[in-house]
Amino acid sequence: MRAEIITIGDELLLGQVIDTNSAWIGQILFKNNIQVAYKTTISDQKSAIDSQLNTSLERSDLIVITGGLGPTKDDITKITLAQYFNMGWRIDQKVVQNLEKIFEKKSRKMLEINVMQAEMPDGCETLYNEWGTAPGMWFEHHGKIIISLPGVPYEMKNIFEFKALPKIREKFKTEPLFYKTMVTFNIPESLLAIKIKDVEESLPAHISLAYLPNLNVVRLRLTGKMTGQLNIKEEINHFANQIKDLIGDAIVAEEDLTMSEIISGVLKSKHLSLSVAESCTGGLLSHQLTMLPGASQFFVGSVISYSNSVKHHQLGVESTLFETVGAVSEQVVEQMVNGVREKLKTDYAIALSGVAGPGGGSEEKPVGTVVIGICSDKETIVKRFHFIGDRHNVILRSSNMAFDMLRRLILGLEIE
Amino acid sequence: MRAEIITIGDELLLGQVIDTNSAWIGQILFKNNIQVAYKTTISDQKSAIDSQLNTSLERSDLIVITGGLGPTKDDITKITLAQYFNMGWRIDQKVVQNLEKIFEKKSRKMLEINVMQAEMPDGCETLYNEWGTAPGMWFEHHGKIIISLPGVPYEMKNIFEFKALPKIREKFKTEPLFYKTMVTFNIPESLLAIKIKDVEESLPAHISLAYLPNLNVVRLRLTGKMTGQLNIKEEINHFANQIKDLIGDAIVAEEDLTMSEIISGVLKSKHLSLSVAESCTGGLLSHQLTMLPGASQFFVGSVISYSNSVKHHQLGVESTLFETVGAVSEQVVEQMVNGVREKLKTDYAIALSGVAGPGGGSEEKPVGTVVIGICSDKETIVKRFHFIGDRHNVILRSSNMAFDMLRRLILGLEIE
Repeated sequence: MRAEIITIGDELLLGQVIDTNSAWIGQILFKNNIQVAYKTTISDQKSAIDSQLNTSLERSDLIVITGGLGPTKDDITKITLAQYFNMGWRIDQKVVQNLEKIFEKKSRKMLEINVMQAEMPDGCETLYNEWGTAPGMWFEHHGKIIISLPGVPYEMKNIFEFKALPKIREKFKTEPLFYKTMVTFNIPESLLAIKIKDVEESLPAHISLAYLPNLNVVRLRLTGKMTGQLNIKEEINHFANQIKDLIGDAIVAEEDLTMSEIISGVLKSKHLSLSVAESCTGGLLSHQLTMLPGASQFFVGSVISYSNSVKHHQLGVESTLFETVGAVSEQVVEQMVNGVREKLKTDYAIALSGVAGPGGGSEEKPVGTVVIGICSDKETIVKRFHFIGDRHNVILRSSNMAFDMLRRLILGLEIE
Repeated sequence: MRAEIITIGDELLLGQVIDTNSAWIGQILFKNNIQVAYKTTISDQKSAIDSQLNTSLERSDLIVITGGLGPTKDDITKITLAQYFNMGWRIDQKVVQNLEKIFEKKSRKMLEINVMQAEMPDGCETLYNEWGTAPGMWFEHHGKIIISLPGVPYEMKNIFEFKALPKIREKFKTEPLFYKTMVTFNIPESLLAIKIKDVEESLPAHISLAYLPNLNVVRLRLTGKMTGQLNIKEEINHFANQIKDLIGDAIVAEEDLTMSEIISGVLKSKHLSLSVAESCTGGLLSHQLTMLPGASQFFVGSVISYSNSVKHHQLGVESTLFETVGAVSEQVVEQMVNGVREKLKTDYAIALSGVAGPGGGSEEKPVGTVVIGICSDKETIVKRFHFIGDRHNVILRSSNMAFDMLRRLILGLEIE
């Protein structure tokens, strides 16, 4: 059983839109034991769609297509699929009703091009879209399944999860996969590989190990095929434990979590509160925490003290320090982190000040210099780092490092 | 001249990593008048790479490959390419020197698997990587170009831009494209299409119009091929002006900018300062502004008042209001926006409070309810919205709406 994803749209080829849909679909299919073998992005052109359908139908059993279902002229997926499968047209009254409901809710008049969205290829099954105007489609062709979904991410996700997936599960009974992810922090990929070389070399053919590096994080993923006689889950856990023994507390999670999810979990489970003072990271760290539902259980608030005046007036940093040691200094960050914790009355606090670049660097404090402080009512730890990469990278690495420092402080682990 | 991109990695197929590289490469190539016709993601398997190379070499002149160049066992792009092109191996001394420099800087011992990164297929040209350990490669095969780059985004970007692109420009002389993007805000795609129907229908065959919707933003992109006798730039501007006449101030920019770039441009050009009080958006809005280099020219700071206690103590919101009208109310947001502007001493301020979901909604204030306030020293405007979509969507729509409201206030445009 082989699956593939086709995303349609010149805007994806031109890079004007980043395709997050296919990653999401790949994840959901993987969790449902269906592995995606190809992802292809093609142009909004009939010839490109036809030729890709030929290729994909030859090699795959399930084809998920996203994009090109909007009401405008440049969207040609529906008509191209209808022609490809030699289908006529029918009006789907349930789609008409849904459109009427949506336009009533928006207090907007339905337009003719919207009404056309209820015309469906006669022979496909409609995957109703309760979240937008473009319905999805389910085609069966010589035992193969072709699903067409709109490109708008939340519409696509809802249709896929609630309308398409139950039918996919019913249709395909696949050989299950088992996988385990371990998240490591602040240990380079090549050093990791050396440390766990023996385990890696001892892996049987039906178990594979992948390294997924991103910023200071490397995720290790063990994947195995269920085989009749073996208990793959126990077998993978056995190798995972061997890896744990070799790299110890560089492992920060034994499931696929981000650093913000990990620190949020620690704070929530221990009923601790957090406040943040951000300078160079400009809100990213707070955003990462508050993107997770339920953040209010531990996150109280932040002061983004981008200017020195805010550092002084809102956080109580002595203004003479900006002249003597500068805003990117251990002294300023120490006052920032204690200042925000006292002002916002929390158990713990994080503060960051640095040079994210591209400008603002000096010989003494080059771009990438970031000072990070964490504190509780008992102790304050402040450290200086030199992160590599561009502005976005420096900011992301800083926030990951701050999360790990706080995690270590709370769990009583050593902070290098 | 046809280009395509191949990204290699099971982590991309499984959706554990979102591919942002290919969008970036597509953009840069497009700006250099090279259009990407296919993007394909395949597995880290020799057979998949070989078969994709066969297909791609048949149809394209330029193939850019990313991924699979790391030092670990699962990275097989380099060896597969060497075998595909029947090449032996050589040690590239310049790569060795670069590796030594990197490890010296990190104060880490170079490992054997790192040294192997200096082994290059004998017959490809090295694209030196000054930002990491895995060099890129440039192959020429029957007049076609195959470029292999590491998957780490900032390494890939730097090698592509500084090492590969100059060579690509030299190699291919392509028919130039001209394009113009207009950004519209808060007008739905289908309504836009109706309004500009006549212009769209009058477009000649060599000019195309694309709608790129994302949240409350729809970007309109006119693309045209340079043809010998016509001045495509003038021709496209002519149609762009017709569109402008039809949709008026729904156009917020006449180049491809984000809403945060647009408001940053307005604030900078008018030398105005901004402070922010965020509740439901949790730092996203500040992060969007500070991701742009030079944000300190206008952005002073924010108070992320996630808890009511911070709204009261840091922003001066009367605490009785939380009981009477609730934190998501015009009254609270009015005090938040004026509070932060006075405390942080800025020309303008933005404040937001809402129910981002998935929890926390009520009949009176369902998920998606967001109150946004903006103010100057002269006036305060507070409005209530009901945004659709999931938590992330609600937060992103809120911040875009706040940016547009502020833009309109500063430019003296009507705020609906």
